[in-house]
Amino acid sequence: MLKDALSDASRIVELAIKTALRPDGTAIPDAMMYAVKGGKTLRGFLVLEGAKLHHVDPNVAAPIAGAIEAIHAYSLVHDDLPCMDDDALRRGQPTVHRKWDEATAVLAGDALQALGFELIMYADVPDRQKIVLLHMLTLDAGARGMVGGQAMDIAAETAGTQLTLEQIEALQAKKTGALIEWAAAAGPRMTVDADEMPMRVYGRALGRAFQIADDILDVEGDAATVGKAVRKDASAGKATFVSLLGLDAAKRRAETLVEAACDALSPYGNDAETLRDAARYVITRDK
Amino acid sequence: MLKDALSDASRIVELAIKTALRPDGTAIPDAMMYAVKGGKTLRGFLVLEGAKLHHVDPNVAAPIAGAIEAIHAYSLVHDDLPCMDDDALRRGQPTVHRKWDEATAVLAGDALQALGFELIMYADVPDRQKIVLLHMLTLDAGARGMVGGQAMDIAAETAGTQLTLEQIEALQAKKTGALIEWAAAAGPRMTVDADEMPMRVYGRALGRAFQIADDILDVEGDAATVGKAVRKDASAGKATFVSLLGLDAAKRRAETLVEAACDALSPYGNDAETLRDAARYVITRDK
Repeated sequence: MLKDALSDASRIVELAIKTALRPDGTAIPDAMMYAVKGGKTLRGFLVLEGAKLHHVDPNVAAPIAGAIEAIHAYSLVHDDLPCMDDDALRRGQPTVHRKWDEATAVLAGDALQALGFELIMYADVPDRQKIVLLHMLTLDAGARGMVGGQAMDIAAETAGTQLTLEQIEALQAKKTGALIEWAAAAGPRMTVDADEMPMRVYGRALGRAFQIADDILDVEGDAATVGKAVRKDASAGKATFVSLLGLDAAKRRAETLVEAACDALSPYGNDAETLRDAARYVITRDK
Repeated sequence: MLKDALSDASRIVELAIKTALRPDGTAIPDAMMYAVKGGKTLRGFLVLEGAKLHHVDPNVAAPIAGAIEAIHAYSLVHDDLPCMDDDALRRGQPTVHRKWDEATAVLAGDALQALGFELIMYADVPDRQKIVLLHMLTLDAGARGMVGGQAMDIAAETAGTQLTLEQIEALQAKKTGALIEWAAAAGPRMTVDADEMPMRVYGRALGRAFQIADDILDVEGDAATVGKAVRKDASAGKATFVSLLGLDAAKRRAETLVEAACDALSPYGNDAETLRDAARYVITRDK
């Protein structure tokens, strides 16, 4: 059920993005599509599932799901650059700057960001709803969101500072949490007068659980399965949820967050079962 | 008059951007502000002047002027990166990656792009107008616009291909022309039912003249005055308007375009005199 929903989301997201791209004789559209493919499509799935709960047509939600995955892909392509995390592998494939070159990776990321905002324009929702979706996304993607989180991360690493648990929470909330929360809240936001709080609370808890699970995967995971380098945090001497809490306590915290995420969905009753499965999957996944 | 209008535009744009930034303990907000400062603010000026002609309050137009300058600044910061044009000097100052580092330049550029789209949300114009402004800007900034033009430029340089005049026109229309045309059309687009054609035609001709003038500056200009490296095109063996047309014919073409730009403003009569001055300035400027 969840597996089907995630693979449906991948298909829908790829189609939404492909439809908006135009071949132009350069590598950019190919690199953009390459960067989008092969992920879990968790964010796109959250958009589509939230839309379904609020009786929004999947065709209406599709560009919004494409938008968040385009923004997510842009952040991965730029974070992988040699001047940032310098990663060779992403989703089990060479990173964009390894497959093409750095200029292509910078430009494909730039174009994916613009495309993310562009795709929101294509959704058949009221203008006010578009503007709310877009405004939140610009905040989450910009200096106060994703970019700010990544900059804080790099600054701490450069300074050789060990972050506290509170600082890591704040940093991850910007870097990873904001987009996941946005994706979860997007469904109710597409409709007029819907209460977005249950999905926001779900998304926020899910985002926090997701990041703890990422830290656990970095310790317990296998690079071939995870699809990217592991043991990076420990070898860089970076403070993580695992290094600060210990493995068992980190797992318990993630489980508690998943329970909170599931509880937040109670207004939806059984209709939200796939979203609950997604929350449980987030901390049991092996990639 | 034009000089005052340009320096007013700088002040207004810097304030609009400064207001939207928040210190976060990283270098990113500073690097963003640094990247915005010290330019000609031609695009911001076009927005403000177009707004004035359509009786839009300057306070309403200010965030839109800030938006286009943020997008323009982002493109300069990324184009200057070592993996792109590898420039050390911009507007007479060290480029962002020289003053800070490459990661800061990538992130500051990314955040400036998000900020550009964000700022449009702050303008007190009808929702439909915001969406039109934003949608055009995402297209102009993305793979079909600025990014596509830059990618075509790099692809031609990597392949050692000499572009034809037609190809250069197409490339520059995306790389430089689109944002200038957008800025010129933004004033009428802020209002309901205004005819944006005169300003669009003006902006398109101005953008073409601007790029020819840039090629001429690369040949005739002085690096200290221009504020960036010159003779780059010739030393890279790149085809330009000057190399293909010759210096005199390039100047004549730029003059013809400026005349066309000024003619397009006839519906505005004498009210458009500052915009006509701007068109004449574009081909006589020394930086």
